[in-house]
Amino acid sequence: MPFVRISLRGDVTDRQLSAISDAVHHAMVQTFNVPPKDRFQLLTRHTSQELVCAPEYLDIAHGERVAFIQITCNEGRTTDMKKALFARLAKSVAEAGALAVADVIVNLVEVKKENWSFGNGIAQYAAETVGSFDAFPSSPPREGKS
Amino acid sequence: MPFVRISLRGDVTDRQLSAISDAVHHAMVQTFNVPPKDRFQLLTRHTSQELVCAPEYLDIAHGERVAFIQITCNEGRTTDMKKALFARLAKSVAEAGALAVADVIVNLVEVKKENWSFGNGIAQYAAETVGSFDAFPSSPPREGKS
Amino acid sequence: MPFVRISLRGDVTDRQLSAISDAVHHAMVQTFNVPPKDRFQLLTRHTSQELVCAPEYLDIAHGERVAFIQITCNEGRTTDMKKALFARLAKSVAEAGALAVADVIVNLVEVKKENWSFGNGIAQYAAETVGSFDAFPSSPPREGKS
Repeated sequence: MPFVRISLRGDVTDRQLSAISDAVHHAMVQTFNVPPKDRFQLLTRHTSQELVCAPEYLDIAHGERVAFIQITCNEGRTTDMKKALFARLAKSVAEAGALAVADVIVNLVEVKKENWSFGNGIAQYAAETVGSFDAFPSSPPREGKS
Repeated sequence: MPFVRISLRGDVTDRQLSAISDAVHHAMVQTFNVPPKDRFQLLTRHTSQELVCAPEYLDIAHGERVAFIQITCNEGRTTDMKKALFARLAKSVAEAGALAVADVIVNLVEVKKENWSFGNGIAQYAAETVGSFDAFPSSPPREGKS
Repeated sequence: MPFVRISLRGDVTDRQLSAISDAVHHAMVQTFNVPPKDRFQLLTRHTSQELVCAPEYLDIAHGERVAFIQITCNEGRTTDMKKALFARLAKSVAEAGALAVADVIVNLVEVKKENWSFGNGIAQYAAETVGSFDAFPSSPPREGKS
């Protein structure tokens, strides 16, 4: 898929929210072998009381504006791919304007390829003939229609 | 358990939200060996800007009304059970009225059976004597009290 | 990390929400080998219609005030550590005032240690020299700076 949950503090504007949405998606396309059309995100805004972030952890200080990004994706990507994703995500989101690189906090939840349905009640990645791009991170992105 | 997060667009009415909640639960009882009483769901509504869905992916076009359904459940179910769940979920949710089958988008996050507590601070499924229905998908649903 | 999502009914006050936040964090520090500074939480409030909880499951009756606590953490902790966490969580949250022990409902999602970035675009736990406390539950909590 992947499916991306992005949790932000409440004072992020609509414009910044859209820029963060784009930045996260582009980072995934560029480094994580995600097809450009494969975009499923949920962005939410929260008060400081509801989004609780350590003021400092592992020698990284966190400001008021933080993003928690939780990505559910297929298992099988290498640690190097994950490192490349984290680096690009932090850079892209920071360049989008609302956040510092220190405040882009990410975690990945990996699942089996047969655990997805993209509509119509079908487990699209379970049928190998459909081309499960996300399931085979080493192959180049392709799509039936594009 | 399972634990189900259902994310919808904001214009879904309360009545539709309840119908979707029921449809998802019934589909899980019918196809995924979930006991009828085992219902733990979180349904949230979001703006179009916050819930971002590909207009088309894998040749499936998506409309304004989509549902992202993320189900955390015990590991061990077969791919055939997952396929049956996806098919029934799409059909049931579409029949509930607010969505097309194309717009029911699902993913499963599988965990170990000792990873749940249903209250009272106990890991109910870790103790094999308690009868961890969800943990053994091939056995028929039973419950101590029913 | 871990990353903690706490979902509550809407009538929980700000004061109760903060007490629950503290109680959950302290339970994790005390029983789950989480460093005191390692605190990343998202607390949300929902209507009764949106947060659907079984009135009774596994002989445990649930009231109006329930908490769904979903913890994403590193894999590798023992079942005994999970049992200790559940017991402490229920006790601590109940002592915080707003909920009964029966209504603290928890599940754990376990991930690999290289699946985290705590800022700056680095996979901090992938580099073994950084000291991935959360990754090695049997070692005592330490932190570079403290």
